[in-house]
Amino acid sequence: MSPSAVHSGLLRLSTRGHGDIVDLTEGVRSVLRTSQVALGVAHVFVTGSTAAVTTMEYEPGGVADLQALLERLIPAKAEYLHNARNHDTNAHAHLRAAVLGPSLSVPVVDGRLILGTWQQVVLADFDDRPRERQVTVQIVG
Amino acid sequence: MSPSAVHSGLLRLSTRGHGDIVDLTEGVRSVLRTSQVALGVAHVFVTGSTAAVTTMEYEPGGVADLQALLERLIPAKAEYLHNARNHDTNAHAHLRAAVLGPSLSVPVVDGRLILGTWQQVVLADFDDRPRERQVTVQIVG
Amino acid sequence: MSPSAVHSGLLRLSTRGHGDIVDLTEGVRSVLRTSQVALGVAHVFVTGSTAAVTTMEYEPGGVADLQALLERLIPAKAEYLHNARNHDTNAHAHLRAAVLGPSLSVPVVDGRLILGTWQQVVLADFDDRPRERQVTVQIVG
Repeated sequence: MSPSAVHSGLLRLSTRGHGDIVDLTEGVRSVLRTSQVALGVAHVFVTGSTAAVTTMEYEPGGVADLQALLERLIPAKAEYLHNARNHDTNAHAHLRAAVLGPSLSVPVVDGRLILGTWQQVVLADFDDRPRERQVTVQIVG
Repeated sequence: MSPSAVHSGLLRLSTRGHGDIVDLTEGVRSVLRTSQVALGVAHVFVTGSTAAVTTMEYEPGGVADLQALLERLIPAKAEYLHNARNHDTNAHAHLRAAVLGPSLSVPVVDGRLILGTWQQVVLADFDDRPRERQVTVQIVG
Repeated sequence: MSPSAVHSGLLRLSTRGHGDIVDLTEGVRSVLRTSQVALGVAHVFVTGSTAAVTTMEYEPGGVADLQALLERLIPAKAEYLHNARNHDTNAHAHLRAAVLGPSLSVPVVDGRLILGTWQQVVLADFDDRPRERQVTVQIVG
């Protein structure tokens, strides 16, 4: 136990959109190293309503499976009121993002993220065009 | 970097249930202002197993789309063991809440929630009747 | 408001896999008691990419409903690239875990978890074999 503090880092990423999934793990680790926190929590948050963060094994098969799953459950081409009312085309992206969620909290012990060997922190960008994304990493410890 | 502390706020809301989605953003901001925290994290949590929190663009089209999506994937009228065993009617609400999740963590930088312009913090109440809800906001910073 | 600190606890669990859902609430409470934190947040995180944490009413009907829902939406027996590319059999477990997510943050007020009476913290293990799981509980307060 030690008095705690908050350290903040910002990751800027270019994505291709369309369900692009990007590995954030090294970016989060970089913010953690700068913070010099040994015991705490790394909070990861993506700004925007058409992207989400979660963890997964970041390998091409799993990435393609997650993209296919979300297309099957929440198809891009369907009738959505968001699109009809706002002359928009990315209602599916909003829905996928709301279901997966924008935030994730990973424990820090001995200065390391407590992730599994095959568990990476990822950003999923569901928008229907390339985007510049900002992911905020708050280290509490 | 500054020594941190925890501040707590309670939001009380009346919902209509049946998938009612309520914008919590101003409520969370109000707790944040009271806390006077400049750098930290705002943790939002709904008590109860038939409601969830997430972020979304809070506009009527997107709200209706999310309600329709959840009704399609997790219909209210289906055979559920929760209902059969407990003479209950809200099994679908439990399932939707468990999948979306009750907690959300939003970064605070310069005393502001780091949300997108079209990204609001929302409560979704899936129960099949109006409810009084309690949302706890813990500001760590 | 009081200066905060971080306390860490590790829960070790044996699961049966195959969608086994385990109640973590007493384990989290045990870490909280040891921490002596009165006001703060309990962060719960499962290490690994085939398990998730959320909250639900932990009763047999709801547990079976959640297992059936995930089997319907993300079936174990389907064509997945993760399985084809890696000669593996648990792609569905990876997908279910990524959608539900590995982390949860529960408020602590007056030394108690702010959960509903019928709201428990659960681990869902989707892997297709029994597993030893590690759940890290970070108490910030």
